[in-house]
Amino acid sequence: MSDKKFTLAVCQLRTETVYEETMEKAERMLREAADSGADVAVLPEMFSCPYDRQYFREFASRGHQDTWNRMSDWAKANRLLLVGGSVPETEGDRLYNSCFVFDAEGRQIARHRKIHLFDVDLPGMRFHESHTFTPGTDITVFDTDFGRMGAAVCFDVRFPELFRAMARRGAELICLPAQFNMTTGPAHWEMSLRMRATDNEVFFVGAAAARYEGFSYECWGHSMILDPFGTPLAAADEKEQLLLAEIDPGRVAEVRAQLPTFLHLREDVYRVAD
Amino acid sequence: MSDKKFTLAVCQLRTETVYEETMEKAERMLREAADSGADVAVLPEMFSCPYDRQYFREFASRGHQDTWNRMSDWAKANRLLLVGGSVPETEGDRLYNSCFVFDAEGRQIARHRKIHLFDVDLPGMRFHESHTFTPGTDITVFDTDFGRMGAAVCFDVRFPELFRAMARRGAELICLPAQFNMTTGPAHWEMSLRMRATDNEVFFVGAAAARYEGFSYECWGHSMILDPFGTPLAAADEKEQLLLAEIDPGRVAEVRAQLPTFLHLREDVYRVAD
Repeated sequence: MSDKKFTLAVCQLRTETVYEETMEKAERMLREAADSGADVAVLPEMFSCPYDRQYFREFASRGHQDTWNRMSDWAKANRLLLVGGSVPETEGDRLYNSCFVFDAEGRQIARHRKIHLFDVDLPGMRFHESHTFTPGTDITVFDTDFGRMGAAVCFDVRFPELFRAMARRGAELICLPAQFNMTTGPAHWEMSLRMRATDNEVFFVGAAAARYEGFSYECWGHSMILDPFGTPLAAADEKEQLLLAEIDPGRVAEVRAQLPTFLHLREDVYRVAD
Repeated sequence: MSDKKFTLAVCQLRTETVYEETMEKAERMLREAADSGADVAVLPEMFSCPYDRQYFREFASRGHQDTWNRMSDWAKANRLLLVGGSVPETEGDRLYNSCFVFDAEGRQIARHRKIHLFDVDLPGMRFHESHTFTPGTDITVFDTDFGRMGAAVCFDVRFPELFRAMARRGAELICLPAQFNMTTGPAHWEMSLRMRATDNEVFFVGAAAARYEGFSYECWGHSMILDPFGTPLAAADEKEQLLLAEIDPGRVAEVRAQLPTFLHLREDVYRVAD
């Protein structure tokens, strides 16, 4: 990672059922982030499309190109490295839950297709993302002016091997656009983010949507920016808001020296993802 | 795992500097556990020996056989499956931080030698276990009347691959005798236990020593017994106490069906420890 400190923003926005309203809001929040000194900004999972099966199909029918174009414009206009949450990406008949990443010139530098789809059958929470989406197959790391980073989407966080692999490929900051809910959120959200940060001794950004009370799927919110010791640098509640934190890349090497875990894996004893 | 429910106890005891005092206390707490209906009991890391370099050497000089004999006797006398925390195990010139496990006949059925030694250099907490101990090399799972279980010791918990491997070898309940401290305890103890339980959808038992105020190493305490969803079934504060919980083995399959993570690993995308 570069030695240069930088500022990272999470736009915890509430997705509206009217597309243009969401787009205007995202544009406004990204401008506010840039005005606040952000160098990097992260949007939530499915920020462009309400998180409900009927909307996935409807929003997908228009394709993802318009959202892609706007993200590219927002990145360039605000000189931001933009981790564009996720959108329903169309490819032929297939739909992916995809995170596009843009540099400050508006060029796409990475795309992560959610690998682990959200299929759960919990008391009070049933959801089957795989009825709509196709899973991705690739681990996503990318180089930026601020060092190497990684991206994954929501349910991906439940699989420690994925984050181990990203960290072993050199990612020192990992972004996770997400939408945990009112069941899994209080149970698992914060500890999942903190543990992936701590296990790999990397910065970790959980970018959630704001809660939409009364909507079919209520997001837990609670976006967080964590340092490599798992300590929160910034944390949101469930409401719409902009989170900001200063990232000191030197902390990665510092924590790895103080608490030797990531650098002391016992590959003679167990297999490690890479 | 067997379908039979059973009761598990954690003896969160404070290790004394006088060996006989600790042994009498452990014996008393295990009898109390059995009287309370416990089928399985778990002792803390280094329960027989104060957690300080000078004591490791002193206690190791007498060898581990006396402690081993007593543990075997306690298991048999109380008809307990006993996960014997850990003790300084001597083998020639070498010293291991070892967990011995006994069945209700007092027979040793497993031994785990701590694989990852506690070498940290944190502000306010420096410790170098590797100056005294030799690390183990084996992953430990064992069959019991209550199903297959696993054991690891303290700093081992920081390496998710080890717990993945135990769960993939069939362990549905994992015991972790431990002594986190006043720095790493509040930062990482609870989330580490809960995350290893949740990632692998297994029961997880963190058996800590009680806090000894004024001693050179103050243990964080806070023993916990967690279900496969990461929900605490019982939790201690820092004081000496007996924790009890009923274990319903059927919960493992239930949670794995409701929230398919452990059974949905993407081995086509990343390597998984086994």
